[in-house]
Amino acid sequence: MPHDLLIRNVRPMAGPATDVLVRDGKIAVVGHRLSPVAGMMVEEGGGDLLLPGLVEAHTHLDKSLLGQPWYTNTVGPRLLDKIDNERLNKRRLGMDPYQQSFRQTVQSSRLGSTHIRSHVDVDTDHGMWGVEGIMQMRQDCHDIIDVEIVAFPQSGLLRRPGTLALMHEAMKLGAEIVGGLDPCAIDRDPKGHLDAVFGLCQTYGKALDIHLHEPGEMGAFSTDLIIERTRALGMRGKVTISHAFCLGSPDRDLIDPLIEQLAELDIAIMTTGPASRPAPPVKKLLAAGIRVCSGSDGIRDTWGPYGNGDMLERAMFVGLRNNFRRDDEMALAFDVVTGEGAKVMELAGYGIAVGCNADLLIVPGESVADAIVSRSPLRRVIKRGQVVARNGVSILKAP
Amino acid sequence: MPHDLLIRNVRPMAGPATDVLVRDGKIAVVGHRLSPVAGMMVEEGGGDLLLPGLVEAHTHLDKSLLGQPWYTNTVGPRLLDKIDNERLNKRRLGMDPYQQSFRQTVQSSRLGSTHIRSHVDVDTDHGMWGVEGIMQMRQDCHDIIDVEIVAFPQSGLLRRPGTLALMHEAMKLGAEIVGGLDPCAIDRDPKGHLDAVFGLCQTYGKALDIHLHEPGEMGAFSTDLIIERTRALGMRGKVTISHAFCLGSPDRDLIDPLIEQLAELDIAIMTTGPASRPAPPVKKLLAAGIRVCSGSDGIRDTWGPYGNGDMLERAMFVGLRNNFRRDDEMALAFDVVTGEGAKVMELAGYGIAVGCNADLLIVPGESVADAIVSRSPLRRVIKRGQVVARNGVSILKAP
Repeated sequence: MPHDLLIRNVRPMAGPATDVLVRDGKIAVVGHRLSPVAGMMVEEGGGDLLLPGLVEAHTHLDKSLLGQPWYTNTVGPRLLDKIDNERLNKRRLGMDPYQQSFRQTVQSSRLGSTHIRSHVDVDTDHGMWGVEGIMQMRQDCHDIIDVEIVAFPQSGLLRRPGTLALMHEAMKLGAEIVGGLDPCAIDRDPKGHLDAVFGLCQTYGKALDIHLHEPGEMGAFSTDLIIERTRALGMRGKVTISHAFCLGSPDRDLIDPLIEQLAELDIAIMTTGPASRPAPPVKKLLAAGIRVCSGSDGIRDTWGPYGNGDMLERAMFVGLRNNFRRDDEMALAFDVVTGEGAKVMELAGYGIAVGCNADLLIVPGESVADAIVSRSPLRRVIKRGQVVARNGVSILKAP
Repeated sequence: MPHDLLIRNVRPMAGPATDVLVRDGKIAVVGHRLSPVAGMMVEEGGGDLLLPGLVEAHTHLDKSLLGQPWYTNTVGPRLLDKIDNERLNKRRLGMDPYQQSFRQTVQSSRLGSTHIRSHVDVDTDHGMWGVEGIMQMRQDCHDIIDVEIVAFPQSGLLRRPGTLALMHEAMKLGAEIVGGLDPCAIDRDPKGHLDAVFGLCQTYGKALDIHLHEPGEMGAFSTDLIIERTRALGMRGKVTISHAFCLGSPDRDLIDPLIEQLAELDIAIMTTGPASRPAPPVKKLLAAGIRVCSGSDGIRDTWGPYGNGDMLERAMFVGLRNNFRRDDEMALAFDVVTGEGAKVMELAGYGIAVGCNADLLIVPGESVADAIVSRSPLRRVIKRGQVVARNGVSILKAP
């Protein structure tokens, strides 16, 4: 049940101070010296920034080890080492998808995210364990966040027979997006992999969000095959390529024609701003009109120890990776973790204008760039018009 | 006046819990169930990690805008744009070196650093303003930190006549290290620049720490010239190359012979773990026996908005840049911000063994890697045997 809420003395996007009246979970009025009616909640902004809720557009809620004893990582260097290590140890480590995703979701929410797109593992060892756990969690966490599920064949789609049938099952169960992974490097059958995932999209009328770690020429080849299918199947605006390291290649003759077609077909790009890999050039993609979102990827999991779900920190990583220094550049990094993410997730009513859903973040700072570089813990998070976290403490307690 | 201090129930380097007795500013005893004598201070560790004080081996204390109104950055893209913008605006922006360095030093100390090497601008517009300010500051901050000064010709040594004379003046005034900068790219006279800075080293019997942003072949050429002079002048172990982006070149035929000679001449490397530039391969350098340190570089200055002086966060950046994921790799990132930094700065008595200086950090965490990725604000910092910061609050207040 959404509350009516008067937020006083906040600075939307670091603009002049104002008041914001929230009614039925939506922004009803923005103006000066609004008066509360009897019984209305009042939140004193104290001159803090008012920002739209952060959009966590790429994570793996079922992988986190948050709240578990420290995991000593001794895993080998290849992508397949990490994939196999995780699949073989999930149950042993007690990585219950409901519990772990709940922990990460509360963590994300209390740091300001109001929307999550989560890839969820679908494999022959675990079946629907992940998807079912996340679906239960998102029901229980509905008050604090919206979660979208990508059915994700992490261990490969074709190299492990039976996985495709499970992908069908996941889509029937309620996954909203079809996932995929490195058609050349992991499944070693780009035509087979891409025909399968695009086929799933066609069968269930859903969008695609495919992991593509493949670098350079190989990644460009896979991108080209994705473009070809997106065009042929009329899936303009319905495809996201996550990571897309290949777009960080310095070979402009290879990359520029791809960027042109990505723009034409409105194919979105997700980048974490990875420091150790080539990365998509965010400013160039945005200038071409391509939607660019970001995400935490795995947080504190068997893949690596990093991450905390803070999408303001993620904006910093995107900024650092793209050598953003000027305030107008920092604004691009902020867009990536807010409005651009909302466009990728096709969120209706996102923003801080009248009529938008009251999914908001109140945080101290002098400017939008300051919010990113200072990352104050004194955040207040509003979801559906209700304050759901204050100074790092959520209204929900994870199991 | 150093205090006697009993630190109870801490885990040195995440090992078994123990007590540590500090006497006259040095670690006197490490053992179980030590008893305080009358009047001795007692610090209850509560099972937290005990780590050596963090080493900030590359920063610019005179550049920070900490505590100033937000600086809206609209600076051009070239290195020279940033250099000129800063020099022309320093006084206008109120960047008093004493005040600003004091602010950053307190910030560094409260986050766990116990030693700082700071480059300090020497140029014809500001003369000794920077060096004098930092020297006054380090006297006033002596209780909480040790600061080493590098005389740094930020605006170029030869391209701005009069700068070399000021470098002499800075060394006479008390700078401990000779600095330098991009012999090709900035001064456009590699022989002239390097002869001048090595000449300063010879005249004053001091070590060299030279900024080298030059990429690829150009940077390799400058590195080769530095190696040549280090060898010819018998300066083994007395040279640090900061940034050394060229060592991140993928051309092994270019880089491997350089690494071999850097090791032979014990030339140290400083890397910030830069996400947007090629970076020295930390694991490979350490394996070759090369000392590798790190630093925050500029914090919240006219060059860019990032940074907070947290050397645990810097270890994270080094880890992310080098794709460190395993615990044994995270230990390397930790070494870089502690023991390796101490070796570069030639700190006597550094460490957490009996007899070492009691320059320590107490921080919650399950493992060393956890300290890096969690970066708890609940830190206690000990300098010369005295608790100088607790939960982010320093015993000193910056002006």
